[in-house]
Amino acid sequence: MFEARILQGSILKKVLESIKDLVTDANFECTANGFALQAMDSSHVSLVALMLRSTGFDHYRCDRDVTMGMNLLNMSKMLKCADNDDTITMKADDAGDVVTFMFENPKADKISDFQMKLMDIDTEHLGIPDTEYEATVKMSSNEFQRICRDLSSIGDTVTIAVTKDSVKFTTSGDIGEANITCRRTSDGDMKEEKVKTEEDGEKVHNTKSSEGQNVDIDLQEPVTLTFALRYLNSFCKATSLCENVRLQLSKELPVVVQYLIEDMGYVRFYLAPKIEEEDADES
Amino acid sequence: MFEARILQGSILKKVLESIKDLVTDANFECTANGFALQAMDSSHVSLVALMLRSTGFDHYRCDRDVTMGMNLLNMSKMLKCADNDDTITMKADDAGDVVTFMFENPKADKISDFQMKLMDIDTEHLGIPDTEYEATVKMSSNEFQRICRDLSSIGDTVTIAVTKDSVKFTTSGDIGEANITCRRTSDGDMKEEKVKTEEDGEKVHNTKSSEGQNVDIDLQEPVTLTFALRYLNSFCKATSLCENVRLQLSKELPVVVQYLIEDMGYVRFYLAPKIEEEDADES
Amino acid sequence: MFEARILQGSILKKVLESIKDLVTDANFECTANGFALQAMDSSHVSLVALMLRSTGFDHYRCDRDVTMGMNLLNMSKMLKCADNDDTITMKADDAGDVVTFMFENPKADKISDFQMKLMDIDTEHLGIPDTEYEATVKMSSNEFQRICRDLSSIGDTVTIAVTKDSVKFTTSGDIGEANITCRRTSDGDMKEEKVKTEEDGEKVHNTKSSEGQNVDIDLQEPVTLTFALRYLNSFCKATSLCENVRLQLSKELPVVVQYLIEDMGYVRFYLAPKIEEEDADES
Repeated sequence: MFEARILQGSILKKVLESIKDLVTDANFECTANGFALQAMDSSHVSLVALMLRSTGFDHYRCDRDVTMGMNLLNMSKMLKCADNDDTITMKADDAGDVVTFMFENPKADKISDFQMKLMDIDTEHLGIPDTEYEATVKMSSNEFQRICRDLSSIGDTVTIAVTKDSVKFTTSGDIGEANITCRRTSDGDMKEEKVKTEEDGEKVHNTKSSEGQNVDIDLQEPVTLTFALRYLNSFCKATSLCENVRLQLSKELPVVVQYLIEDMGYVRFYLAPKIEEEDADES
Repeated sequence: MFEARILQGSILKKVLESIKDLVTDANFECTANGFALQAMDSSHVSLVALMLRSTGFDHYRCDRDVTMGMNLLNMSKMLKCADNDDTITMKADDAGDVVTFMFENPKADKISDFQMKLMDIDTEHLGIPDTEYEATVKMSSNEFQRICRDLSSIGDTVTIAVTKDSVKFTTSGDIGEANITCRRTSDGDMKEEKVKTEEDGEKVHNTKSSEGQNVDIDLQEPVTLTFALRYLNSFCKATSLCENVRLQLSKELPVVVQYLIEDMGYVRFYLAPKIEEEDADES
Repeated sequence: MFEARILQGSILKKVLESIKDLVTDANFECTANGFALQAMDSSHVSLVALMLRSTGFDHYRCDRDVTMGMNLLNMSKMLKCADNDDTITMKADDAGDVVTFMFENPKADKISDFQMKLMDIDTEHLGIPDTEYEATVKMSSNEFQRICRDLSSIGDTVTIAVTKDSVKFTTSGDIGEANITCRRTSDGDMKEEKVKTEEDGEKVHNTKSSEGQNVDIDLQEPVTLTFALRYLNSFCKATSLCENVRLQLSKELPVVVQYLIEDMGYVRFYLAPKIEEEDADES
């Protein structure tokens, strides 16, 4: 039997909102470690990886590994029926074909349970190799969303150029060209923070919230890559999950766009760069 | 001549908004008692009854009974031109074919008058028998609206089951099932409050507003009935009129969904239950 | 070379929003005096005249007169990428075919530059004769917008009748008629204010803001004119530019609808009245 309860149900609602437009059907993998998902978007261009660690739930029980195939749009419809301050409990029998979402309000006088039919979904789990990235940028997730949206009104792709001191977003289209440069604003204790947040599960980035719109850059080598704005804009639906977004870039590798989910885990989006001649020459 | 003035024009605006999507054309009956309307919705499935008592107006004069046929959409267009803090005056001559809506702002430096043509509408007034209902539920109108809307994302009908201690809303559809249970939270001085509000016209439910989302149940016999969510959702457009909604249910009878209009009167919606086999057996 | 910087970029954004739906392509005239535009709307019924005086910019340099043909929709797309508290700088070379918009945020860690291609636009500059108007009305721009929008739900045209003590807006349509009368509420120090604002560039109307929704009327002769509401509604997109709007009316002349732009200049809209028989008789 699988059972997982989260007091702050709004987190689960936000997670679904952030991926439901990208992925239609997906298998959730429930294990002793946590509640995870990995799926290609419906056009097979980008990849989503979600991890909600068991330690982040207020109650978590998973007697044996379970794979639950869900339609994310339907799941989102049900989760929308939970109030933001409701407790959400997910339940499934090992051999069942149904998952139950239970919502309880804080005053405990309204209790909802929603049963959703599970689906059989054929997928292959892609191994994502652990990579040292040439450039890591951490910046305000709102700012990143704003930039992607703004550039979309000019062009279809964005070229992201990371140097030691700045990250520059460039596009061009029929009506003209645009360059947006964000300067590095801190000395980059970013790495340390990342470790703490992911390993110890401390709410480290809460204590950092007063720092606001800092841009941190961790650079092995300057890197310039071009991506389809359409997908980046879709990733930005995760903006409300976390104050900061982390971009990891390396030549010829997919960019990793990561949003941490409080001290529970993360949503990561992967998107391959557009191959352009100058990139090809450098390789 | 008919003339009725209401200082808090927003009330009249909200009344119109709550019924204009359900009813297209309707006869308003203006008598010494008040300003009333009774009409079937355009698909002849539900019934609306509105009563604004003459004592609730700040000025009211009705020399003889007048029937005014109005297109509610047009009436709503005109009332939308009143600011929420405007005074609204309705005027009509006994034999005229026009009604005038006059709006005055609090500073009395902006005065609007709108003339609307009246219509001849054939209707028969349905007598609504005074009934003792098996179950009466009073709950937050916001909560009721939320439940109807949420369940609409899963199914088309809702089964409302009232017991001594709770009211349960159930639906099912292609993507699954949903149950929402609201527990009774008070000992039900509801009956007394109802009497006071309707007879004495005291602003009783204002003094109760601090109690919030209480669910009161007054039960002769448990009752379970099924309704089309589409109509309930339409009724919920009256939510802003009153903090609480009252549902009255009896086997095989239409549910009465009532919103009180401050100390002026009420909007009541009637909707017949879906006949299902188990209901038929019990009768 | 032309270069103009404005610290409060939101002003330039609002100016564009107020005219971009009316005018598609237009020539901006950059001179030592300022940044100006004059254009007919696309149906050649109304005229827009914009003036941003050089003295109102925080930095302004214009070595020789330049005419820059721009697509206002594209220009608006670019300006929308500026935050409201960004500084905006416009730059163009004398012989170039490109204009650059540069945005800097207050913390100076985000810098954007957008290049837009210029266009060759054939226009003739219309001389607008300096006229003494029979009636000048100054009123809350919000109130004027509200009235134009409200009347649009009843009819297509509005008749504006100005007397010594009031301005009355009338329309009629299939569903009925409407009259909105705004009473003069002050003794009209309007003229003095106008002079100060336009000549001295003092922020006079800021100090008047507490007076709220006053209606000032300066009248040589009562005047009654009829206009298409469609265009007035379009002019009202400038509402956010200024707390007050000024209407200038004379028989058989276009109305002038003016919004001051802080101490920088103005947007003026001109619209010819509908010729009706009674107007013709009076002339």
